Amino acid sequence: MKSRVRIAGLGTALPARVVASSQIEQELGLPDGWCERTTGVRERRRAISETTLSMAADAANAAIQAAGNVPSIDLIIGASSAPQQAIPCTAALLQRALGLENGRSFCLDVNATCLSFLVAVDLAAKWISSGASQSALIFSSETTRQSLNPAESESFSLIGDGAAAAVLVAAGSSESELVYAQWATHSSGADLTQFLGAGTLHHPNDPATTAEMNLFSMQGRSIFRVAARELPPFLDTFFGSSGWQRSDVDVVIPHQASRIGLELLTARCGFREEQVFSNLATRGNCVAASIPLALSEAVAAGRVQRGDRVLLLGTGAGFSMGALALTY
Amino acid sequence: MKSRVRIAGLGTALPARVVASSQIEQELGLPDGWCERTTGVRERRRAISETTLSMAADAANAAIQAAGNVPSIDLIIGASSAPQQAIPCTAALLQRALGLENGRSFCLDVNATCLSFLVAVDLAAKWISSGASQSALIFSSETTRQSLNPAESESFSLIGDGAAAAVLVAAGSSESELVYAQWATHSSGADLTQFLGAGTLHHPNDPATTAEMNLFSMQGRSIFRVAARELPPFLDTFFGSSGWQRSDVDVVIPHQASRIGLELLTARCGFREEQVFSNLATRGNCVAASIPLALSEAVAAGRVQRGDRVLLLGTGAGFSMGALALTY
Repeated sequence: MKSRVRIAGLGTALPARVVASSQIEQELGLPDGWCERTTGVRERRRAISETTLSMAADAANAAIQAAGNVPSIDLIIGASSAPQQAIPCTAALLQRALGLENGRSFCLDVNATCLSFLVAVDLAAKWISSGASQSALIFSSETTRQSLNPAESESFSLIGDGAAAAVLVAAGSSESELVYAQWATHSSGADLTQFLGAGTLHHPNDPATTAEMNLFSMQGRSIFRVAARELPPFLDTFFGSSGWQRSDVDVVIPHQASRIGLELLTARCGFREEQVFSNLATRGNCVAASIPLALSEAVAAGRVQRGDRVLLLGTGAGFSMGALALTY
Repeated sequence: MKSRVRIAGLGTALPARVVASSQIEQELGLPDGWCERTTGVRERRRAISETTLSMAADAANAAIQAAGNVPSIDLIIGASSAPQQAIPCTAALLQRALGLENGRSFCLDVNATCLSFLVAVDLAAKWISSGASQSALIFSSETTRQSLNPAESESFSLIGDGAAAAVLVAAGSSESELVYAQWATHSSGADLTQFLGAGTLHHPNDPATTAEMNLFSMQGRSIFRVAARELPPFLDTFFGSSGWQRSDVDVVIPHQASRIGLELLTARCGFREEQVFSNLATRGNCVAASIPLALSEAVAAGRVQRGDRVLLLGTGAGFSMGALALTY
């Protein structure tokens, strides 16, 4: 199941506006220190003038530049939890925004909420391995300001905005590869993370659709309970099948789900603290952009180097889990 | 690039309500016969009580039953132009609606508008070929009533509702296979088919979002011009690379884009009329469900038989094109 692919370049884009937890505490009338204590987030970005597409374009341009001399991109996968607009897919809008040649690439979006980027990497790797594609651009861009519910203090303070992109190519003579991927959805938890609107059931034009339906909703404590129960056996299976041991992993890049979500990895999943990378304190949970943003920052900081064994790991709405082992 | 996969079962679901073109002509004050003359659609279904998810479940159950004794489903791909709700993905909601076991399958949605089903088949085939999956359930379900704009007579009368699903498995000893797939997006046509709302740019709760932004919009004549220009060379390349000649194709199952869209296939793309299957007159353009619904009806009618060489072919918002050659 190995795919001989390489992440040739990574790029990020962050909104200019930094929102400190103290600001949110003031805004929502929360006690001093509540946000960081509860969610682990000290500050996060909020897109004011930036859009999903503008940040995607900035991150994609940076990734393309970092990738250097690679085959021209023939596959563009949008992997955000929300699109720029319902039709066409955000990937098509990005092809145009980047000025990429008409007809030279194919554009689609995937949606697995917080796991979208991971899924897109796995799909693109299979696409490249099969010979159908030479070079794929994958991007996640999240602008959540209008989707956050001030009445839900936890998600309101937890979630941050940002974008990240990656260029994926055949590994060539490098040692890079996608070693193993594993996925599972436990739909008994489908209601734990939801956005009821913006679809056909509660159509934006339906007078019965309430403003609250058009907001993100997250039952943090229940999600944590499901993750605490399901993630350890999921990882046992993963390490039983991937050919890797936990100790083989140089760096775990987890979805920055929440403070307690990250603590699970060391408390119950058998990783050592020094294996786990986190940017939660300064970025918050950037939904689908969380994992690629953390990976990009880990690479920029030298925490992930070529040849390192990296585990990308996340949970998301669904309730879904995904783990992807790669030699960077 | 061949994938040794087989469509083991197909299923469909249609809303109960049939809307005749004469009804639409009365409703919109159009001349008698305008709808069928313009779009080629005599009648179409409209979901009233059915939802995206309920029709998806009906189609999926039918496909699973038709597939018979196959490995249990471990991948569910939602492939509709619009989700049931924004989060989680419709595939996760379907896992729960079908009562499929928690954790046994992974759920994601893909969005390439009218080409979503085709893309999902290609992705699932690669997933199965790589050994990552044994059996994939793919579904497209469209309920468009609240998204149609009565001021846009053409799309209002062209588009119909419906759902279709397929179970994809490894080909085993059968002769079935996915022979070749080709994709391209020409984003200079990104504005030709759009739904501006239901995303982050024109958020449902944004007071600046107008009701019209939450409606489907299609510049039929311009799309036809782009398709007439781009589809013939796209198919020339396809037949230059796929190992098939046009005359090898037993049945072309096109996206039922429109009357003039279908006429392109014989007028400019080199197919004979008897090769092309159409259900446009009774189903309309069912967006992403159009191709799998047409394929299902062609199989049910005996027009497509095991071992037949089938070309699935479509255009969609983006502007995108896709062609997928398979031995059924």
